[in-house]
Formats: sequence, structure tokens, C-alpha cells
Amino acid sequence: MRRISIGCSVLGLLLALALPGPAAAFEPFRPLPERPPIPEGNPQLPARVALGRTLWFDPRLSVDASVSCNSCHDLLAGGTTPRSTAVGAMGRRGRRNPPTVWNAAFQTALGWDARYRSLEHLAQAHFLDPTVMGWADPGGLEARLRAIPGYRKAFRRAFGGAQPVTARHAAMALAAFQRTLVTPDSPFDRYLRGERQALDERARRGMERFVEAGCAACHFGVLLAGPVPGLALQPGQGFYELFPNFPGSPYDALYRLQDDPGRYARTREPSHKGMWRLPTLRNVALTAPYFHNGSVWSLAEAVRVMGRTELGRELSAQEVEELTAFLRSLTGRLPAIQPPRLPPLPPEGALPGLPGG
Amino acid sequence: MRRISIGCSVLGLLLALALPGPAAAFEPFRPLPERPPIPEGNPQLPARVALGRTLWFDPRLSVDASVSCNSCHDLLAGGTTPRSTAVGAMGRRGRRNPPTVWNAAFQTALGWDARYRSLEHLAQAHFLDPTVMGWADPGGLEARLRAIPGYRKAFRRAFGGAQPVTARHAAMALAAFQRTLVTPDSPFDRYLRGERQALDERARRGMERFVEAGCAACHFGVLLAGPVPGLALQPGQGFYELFPNFPGSPYDALYRLQDDPGRYARTREPSHKGMWRLPTLRNVALTAPYFHNGSVWSLAEAVRVMGRTELGRELSAQEVEELTAFLRSLTGRLPAIQPPRLPPLPPEGALPGLPGG
Repeated sequence: MRRISIGCSVLGLLLALALPGPAAAFEPFRPLPERPPIPEGNPQLPARVALGRTLWFDPRLSVDASVSCNSCHDLLAGGTTPRSTAVGAMGRRGRRNPPTVWNAAFQTALGWDARYRSLEHLAQAHFLDPTVMGWADPGGLEARLRAIPGYRKAFRRAFGGAQPVTARHAAMALAAFQRTLVTPDSPFDRYLRGERQALDERARRGMERFVEAGCAACHFGVLLAGPVPGLALQPGQGFYELFPNFPGSPYDALYRLQDDPGRYARTREPSHKGMWRLPTLRNVALTAPYFHNGSVWSLAEAVRVMGRTELGRELSAQEVEELTAFLRSLTGRLPAIQPPRLPPLPPEGALPGLPGG
Repeated sequence: MRRISIGCSVLGLLLALALPGPAAAFEPFRPLPERPPIPEGNPQLPARVALGRTLWFDPRLSVDASVSCNSCHDLLAGGTTPRSTAVGAMGRRGRRNPPTVWNAAFQTALGWDARYRSLEHLAQAHFLDPTVMGWADPGGLEARLRAIPGYRKAFRRAFGGAQPVTARHAAMALAAFQRTLVTPDSPFDRYLRGERQALDERARRGMERFVEAGCAACHFGVLLAGPVPGLALQPGQGFYELFPNFPGSPYDALYRLQDDPGRYARTREPSHKGMWRLPTLRNVALTAPYFHNGSVWSLAEAVRVMGRTELGRELSAQEVEELTAFLRSLTGRLPAIQPPRLPPLPPEGALPGLPGG
């Protein structure tokens, strides 16, 4: 079997120990906390969160003012986009399906290839990514934001200092806002907390199958994306999967599963070929289309693909039905979203970097 | 002067009569009602509105499940999109900037070239538009929706009958939902209702200039898009403008103002060259970028362009500032939006028309 054991061996052991007793069998899962870890360097100051919320919806963060963060990580569309790959600034298409922003604050590494260490790091990189915000350098974005009086005031309130409007601060504010994007109280969480009827019979059987079939060997922990919180893992351990693990199925061609070498494209390390950061399964019913290339629309089909390519076998119709029911129980409570009010340009002002700006 | 007088002569008269008395000068404006006109054939049944709301957010309405109505008419982005022109199904780009859906239910004609008679008509046409939902025929969409059990139930509840899941019913439900998308109680509306402090001094002066300078000759009525409700106008009267009315300014080239012949592209009637349905100015501060081609990002710049190309003169900095302040007062009360829960596909089901569906 070609299963990759990076980090999974520890859990394999846990599972093997746990499986005999049905109650203990679900130890790999943890309910989603109401709040994610907050890094010491970026406290959740209300002014910072509020600024991040405004920036989140502001298309002026992109070089041609055509996309906001919310364009590709749409809070009304599962925190992602229904497109297979998103369209960024200047109409440029990204190469991979945008991961959901809901609960992203619980991730230990971000991006399909785990290239980002934190939400702050991700935001700063996205500003300069030609397929995302498209800036040639942070200075362009900073000049843009400084031209907007409301931002000068809001950055000062959130960060203080003589020159608070910086790309770094924008990234910090965006990260602070994203740390509020948590969807607790899914039926699964309520079940884990002891509310037995929160899952119906089918979803409960799906949860058992999820562990027995081996899905939970990788999809475990708070996000069902590994690693278990509190279990010390080094970077590079515990959150990659080889996809497809069992190549050669008709799905490979149908969904172009090997169209992208994953983390290898970034690191050029041969062992990283086909390696991907494990995506969270929370709210997975809302985040179609699936996989790095957004090639599969239906959740049940994604389950069938995973069975064949990761577990090496065809799942039965009943298994697919039960696993899908379980996955649907991972949809949390999503808050209503107030449409934003973006700070205006002064009437005399043009928007730096834009004709007609 | 090349001002086009279709329909505007009636109002010109009204304004001329009204202008001497400052209180009467604002007669062309009316506060936005809480509810738009409801057509007799499509009552606002709660089940119909609820179905329309779900359909609004469902990308499965597009042939490749990549865009929902909300993708281009984003309720968190002013009811439109920050892109100059939107990206529809199959990644195909539309030719014009998507008009806002907020308060669209008050329009007497829809689309930049007034091609749609009603929201129902617009939705049915959008299903088949290759740059919007991309279906070759309504049957494809109907088969798609019928494959989703939750829709079979919701259409039955909303419409009854033996075969309720039709594209026509989907369009009716979407229209019913859109008739709830009203943004009342803008500062301007509160001012019109007698709350004098709702507009600050600058916005009040902007309102006066808006009438005096001639903007209100076309932008009048409930939507500031003409016609005055209750004033009987024939189709083709009262809601077109020639743009640019005064060609030859540097703006023509800078913003490609004559890149599209407007209604002429549809009708091939020579008098329709450069004719456009007047866009509403309600919430205009939220709907950048501006004009049919989405070429201008800043509201103040759009005001400058309009002064030069429609009124035939350069507006002073003070005029632009005051007019912009007035336009900002047209932003209404926007409700918080609950993220949708879309009805799932059955686990065994594929989505008709989609690989991986």
C-alpha cells in the first residue's frame, strides 16, 4: 500500500487503540471552539477586526479594483467560490480552487501546498500574487489605501504610530477579521458535546464508517484536516496527503487529478509530488466544487473519488450515502453578513494606480 | 444642443414650472417605497420568495455550476460586481457592467438597453444567455433542478401543479425574491419625508445643483432614473439617454465611451445609437465601477464625466464635491444577508449536464 505515513502513524496507533470501544472511537475528533488561537503579535482589538472586515470587502485592494477578498472567498458561498478556479485581478485565473475562509484561522498551514505560515503571511502574499490582488510591490497598495481618508483614520485607530497605513497592517487587520469567521455548533459538534440526537442514524453510521474506512487517518482533529491540537508536529508533518494515493483509476483522467504536482511545484523536492495540505471537511457541503482543481461538483462523487484514489477501493452506494450524510453534519452555524460600507475617496481624489480611479 | 428630448420634454416643463420655488424644486424626486409594484400574475407568496432566495444563490443554475445570480449581482457588493464586466458561465465575459439588483423591482425596463420587460423576463433570458447562465434551452436547466429533491418539493410548495419545476417558475420565484431587495430610508429619503437634518449642508447644496445643472432632467422619479411613477409613458419614452450627448471630450477615448452603440446593437434603429436605459442613482456610491463598460472607478470622476459628456461643461471642484455628497446620500438601508443553505443532490445522483455532477 502506498499510503503516506508522514504524521499519520501516530494517529494510526491512536485509532488502533481506540477502535475496540465505540465511544472512544471518535477521540480523533474535537468540537470546533468558538474562537481560534490568537497569535500574541496580533490581538483581536475591535478596531483591528472592524478595519479587517472593511478591507475584506473592498475591491480597491486589487490592483485594478476588480476583486475583493470576498470575491474568491465569498461568505455567502461557503467562504469560497463556485468556480473551479477563481478569477483574480486583471481577469487572471488562479490555478487552484480557493479554500474556504470559514475556520481557516484554525489551520496550522494555509494554501493548497501549505506555503503560508499564518493568515497574516497569506494576506501579504496574496497582495503580490499576480493571480490574486496583482500588486507589483506593497508600496502600490499602500499608496492606494492612503488616498482614502477613512482608511487613514481606521488604520491609525487600529495600529497607531506615525505611518500606520502599511500592507503589513492591512494583512494583520484582515487576519484579525478572519479569526472571527468561525462556524461552531454543527450537528456533529453538538453530537460530540453529548447531544446524541443531533446526528440522525444515517449520519452516525457515516461517522463510524469514516473512521473504520480510514478517512479519519488523515481527516482528524478540530478541522478534520489533522493535526490533533496539542499533538506536537513539526512543520511538514501530519498535514499532507498524496493525491491520488492509488493512481490509475478512470477518475484520474475524468477529473485531471494529476494535472498539478502539488507542493512539489513549490519545493521541487521529489517526495512532495502529489502532496497537498489536507483540506478541512468542515462545511464541506457548502464548498463545491471539490479538489485542488475544482473538478467535481457533487459531494457524493467527491466521496467516491476519495474512496477509489485514497483508500484504493470502490465504496458501495450505501457507504457513499452514509459518508455523505456524515459530511453534511459538519456544516456549522453561519452568521448573517451585513453588507459593508466602504470608505469613500475624496471627491477631488483619483485612486492611485487606476485610470478613472 | 444635441440633448435628446425623448420623454424629457414633459419633465423639462415640470422643472421649469417648479424651479422658482425652492421647496417645489424637488418635486421630481419621490421617496423609495418599502415595497415595489407586485405584478398580478406573480404574487409574493412566502414559499415563492423563499424558493427565489435559494435559487438566487445556487450556482447550479448556470450550465457549468460556476456562477449564481449573486456572483454578478452580489448583495454584499452593492448588488453588482466590482469587475468592469462580469464573468458568466464557462468563464465567458459579458459585454456590459451588471446593473445593481437593489431596487431593480422599481424599474419599468431592465438591462442597459431596456431589453427586458420585467424581472421574470430578465431571468428567463439570463438562463439562456451564453454570457450569463449559458443554457442551450430551458429543458437543460429544468432537468438540473428536477434532479434535486429539495427543489422538487420547494417548487411544488411555491407553484403547485403536476410539473412545477420549470424555468418559467424559477424565473417567477427569482423575480419574487428580487422584489424584496429594496433599500429604503436613505438620508435622501428621510430628507424628502421631512427630516431636514438627514442631509448635511453639502449634500443639500448638491441636491439643488443636481436639479439646476440639469441632472434631474433625466435622473428623476423614485429611482432617479425616470420616469415619474404615475406619469404615463409609452415604452421607448422617458428612459433613454444618449451617451455621450456631447461627444469629443478626452473622456471618450480615456473611458471608451463610444465602444458600444447601446440599444442600437439590439434594435438596429439608427435613432437608438448611443441610447441607454437610464441607470438608477440609488446606492450609486456602492456600485462602482460606473457606466455601461465599467470604465470609471471613482464616483467623483463619474460625475465629472457626466458633466462634460451629458451637460456639455466642466463642473467645478466644488460642484463635483457637492454633487458627490448628494449622490452618497442616496445609499439606503441594506439588510444583513443570511448565507444560504442549498438543497443537496441525492448521494446517488449526478447533476444533469455536468461531469462530476
